[in-house]
Amino acid sequence: MEPSNKIHTAQFLQHHLQEVIMLLEKQQLEKSLVQRGPINNHELVETVLCKQQQTRIQEKFAGLRPADTAYILESLPLDQRKTAWNAIKTDQDGQVLLEVSDAVRQTLISGMEAEELVTVASSLDTDEIADLAADLPKRAMLKILRSLNSKERSHLNAILSYQENQVGSRMDFGMITIRDDLNLKAVAAYIRKLGKLPGHTDKLFVVDQNNIVKGILPLQRLLTHSPSRSVADVMVTDFVRFQIDQDIAEASRAFERYDLISAPVIDSNGELQGRLCVDSILDFIRDKTDEDLLIQAGVTEEEDLFSSVWKSAKNRWGWLLINIGTAFASTRIIDVFEDIILQLVALASLMPIIAAMGGNTGNQTSMLIIRSLALGQITSSNIRRLIKKELTLAVLNGTFIGCIIGLLSMLLYRDIALSAVMATAMFINLLVAVLVGLGIPLLRHKFGKDPAVGTSVILTAVTDSMGFFIFLGLAKLFLIDR
Amino acid sequence: MEPSNKIHTAQFLQHHLQEVIMLLEKQQLEKSLVQRGPINNHELVETVLCKQQQTRIQEKFAGLRPADTAYILESLPLDQRKTAWNAIKTDQDGQVLLEVSDAVRQTLISGMEAEELVTVASSLDTDEIADLAADLPKRAMLKILRSLNSKERSHLNAILSYQENQVGSRMDFGMITIRDDLNLKAVAAYIRKLGKLPGHTDKLFVVDQNNIVKGILPLQRLLTHSPSRSVADVMVTDFVRFQIDQDIAEASRAFERYDLISAPVIDSNGELQGRLCVDSILDFIRDKTDEDLLIQAGVTEEEDLFSSVWKSAKNRWGWLLINIGTAFASTRIIDVFEDIILQLVALASLMPIIAAMGGNTGNQTSMLIIRSLALGQITSSNIRRLIKKELTLAVLNGTFIGCIIGLLSMLLYRDIALSAVMATAMFINLLVAVLVGLGIPLLRHKFGKDPAVGTSVILTAVTDSMGFFIFLGLAKLFLIDR
Repeated sequence: MEPSNKIHTAQFLQHHLQEVIMLLEKQQLEKSLVQRGPINNHELVETVLCKQQQTRIQEKFAGLRPADTAYILESLPLDQRKTAWNAIKTDQDGQVLLEVSDAVRQTLISGMEAEELVTVASSLDTDEIADLAADLPKRAMLKILRSLNSKERSHLNAILSYQENQVGSRMDFGMITIRDDLNLKAVAAYIRKLGKLPGHTDKLFVVDQNNIVKGILPLQRLLTHSPSRSVADVMVTDFVRFQIDQDIAEASRAFERYDLISAPVIDSNGELQGRLCVDSILDFIRDKTDEDLLIQAGVTEEEDLFSSVWKSAKNRWGWLLINIGTAFASTRIIDVFEDIILQLVALASLMPIIAAMGGNTGNQTSMLIIRSLALGQITSSNIRRLIKKELTLAVLNGTFIGCIIGLLSMLLYRDIALSAVMATAMFINLLVAVLVGLGIPLLRHKFGKDPAVGTSVILTAVTDSMGFFIFLGLAKLFLIDR
Repeated sequence: MEPSNKIHTAQFLQHHLQEVIMLLEKQQLEKSLVQRGPINNHELVETVLCKQQQTRIQEKFAGLRPADTAYILESLPLDQRKTAWNAIKTDQDGQVLLEVSDAVRQTLISGMEAEELVTVASSLDTDEIADLAADLPKRAMLKILRSLNSKERSHLNAILSYQENQVGSRMDFGMITIRDDLNLKAVAAYIRKLGKLPGHTDKLFVVDQNNIVKGILPLQRLLTHSPSRSVADVMVTDFVRFQIDQDIAEASRAFERYDLISAPVIDSNGELQGRLCVDSILDFIRDKTDEDLLIQAGVTEEEDLFSSVWKSAKNRWGWLLINIGTAFASTRIIDVFEDIILQLVALASLMPIIAAMGGNTGNQTSMLIIRSLALGQITSSNIRRLIKKELTLAVLNGTFIGCIIGLLSMLLYRDIALSAVMATAMFINLLVAVLVGLGIPLLRHKFGKDPAVGTSVILTAVTDSMGFFIFLGLAKLFLIDR
């Protein structure tokens, strides 16, 4: 199988995926027929069949780019995925492993020998090996480390020493550096001699003898300025650079703000350490937003669409257990008011409404705050104004929603006192909800934690229990003793 | 105020934002002091003061890039934002308007005269004017149209005739086209003559006399191949191109898969119509994921952090009203079972747990399905396997969560029958939740609708009402008549 650069449309890929699945299902059927069939020489027939099947699978994957192969593997159920992966082994394996999601990568690597993994690694750049490192078995990783030269090893160490949210962990080393005393003609000759530029090279980095970045030379300038001019003359000296330990989220905002394609990564001395490219930023944004969305539902991003039922279950139980805890805790309050419910059983069907509406409103507030924090729009100087606005909004919301809910209860139960209690409880719980929806993300952010994590659990717990407490408490005060 | 290319770090910008806010607050104070003060010649003093203040604000914004100015304006409360915007008017206004979010753009444009807007538009490309078009008053838009030449007008019409989710609406016209009979030296000379390439130019588009795209010439190849070779010889003929009416989400996945920076946009005849760049894709991904996240909370993306309380309220009421409706509807079921609650009041505090856990579990399933649909991983051939997996998982989850909930009720109420009903109701409601969590997004997708919209409302409505019904129904059957 030849590596290929062929480009495919999404329709083609979806169609291709269906063909692959049909082929794999047909092969499973054939295999089981042979095993059950009346033939004596099972093993030989099976071996021949297996070879034939492998070839046919290989044909199906031939001409696909690694990212497309990855897409198809991700969409295959576990057993079919393993069969396909074993059949298609090529020199593109490393690229495929890089393209699949973390969860799927683990299923692919788990069936591979350490030696295979070393071969795979030998076709990758050090920044790519670093991306795989977390999923590689220790034994394979040690072998790979031994196979690297000292420069590669130090590159790998550099990347691995940074945390996932730091620029250093996402950089690569595909930068072309030049000196500023060359003229553009010499730079052009140098590039022609290199023969090939790393992907996403839109600029060259100008460094001095100490590897300090002094400027950048966009290819644009190289192409549009006279060849006789010197680099020093043409280079841009006011350019975006990133500190190696800087927050990657901040870097990604800079990429969006300044429409960057690549930028140098430097250490605290200004020395060039690597390069950050827009493809890594796209990956980061995709990862982060996926994670944010799934975190709201209590699913970690690493779940593979077809991971084993057992693994998926464990992945989701943590969140569900927490929810059981808070659900039981908040409903304990109802027990305290048992006698009131017995006296006015309508309370039982109205109380969940107060709780649920509190959760919904608080969630709206917290989501907006989380997003504004992520965009860096909230600072100590505008926060007072923001809180004032959200509280005013809460009063307005509370009045409006409270009135509607009061009216609806009136229609249902024709009881003015009950409806008034309902409206008042709603009003108070909406204020509580907004306070909590504002407070949790802001406090988490202040203490350097991710404001998106856990906010919705705490919020629901508070709005539920406060909803029950406020409503049943008001009922006790104003309805029962009248 | 000079336009500037100065690059700023996020810290600098946050700090700068604080300084701007302090300046604006100080000025508000000064103004009110003058108005209250003992001076006779109020008007003159105020005019002088106003001029001084304007100059000081202008100084603050000088040297900022449009994206940075946009960031600061977005983070300012409404009144301060208007003061600042009136003071900083420059030839960069158009770029600033492009960079701010839709909601903030409306607040800025609403204070501008049609003539001002025409001046602003004259500094923009047609694809940029198209981005503003939705927010411009009709009168201004007509004036702008009249100021364009016929080619610009047809470009503008082309973009505006496509929907927001189509490639055509996000393309630009900054492409450089060449013929394939040139040699690379001639191409290099042509570029040098142009003097400047549009942003994100990483490749030139090779077209024939009918404007049909025949290939692309990456700048890389231009730089690394011998100048004497012909374009036809060096160009890449297997390249990514997008149909002008194609889904932008599909295009963004292709950008991620193939690590693209720019790609040609063609019509059904293969004629070159425009160019799609990675910065538009970044914007799209950011918009889409923001929207997905906020939609879950019932907030439309267009809400400005500091939009007026009234506007925010209206923005959020739609969602809250729907929730009131579903909350009342699902709790009607409780009314039907009033007599049972009166006989066993513990049911009142246990029933919200069944409902809430159903919602949580169903949400986990639907989120994973929505995400997999967005990634194109679900096709007709693997969907049966996926449904089977999720149902198995639901049985496993139901057993586990059911047992835990049964045990907890046992601890609280020491009633075996009640605990058994609790566990069984939980088990059944989790199955219902997973079926609904699978069904809604899959059906919506099948009928061509966005699976993310509305799923959580319907899901909660169903798991709530079914939760109450199953639990109270089982209680009636097994607890009350015993």
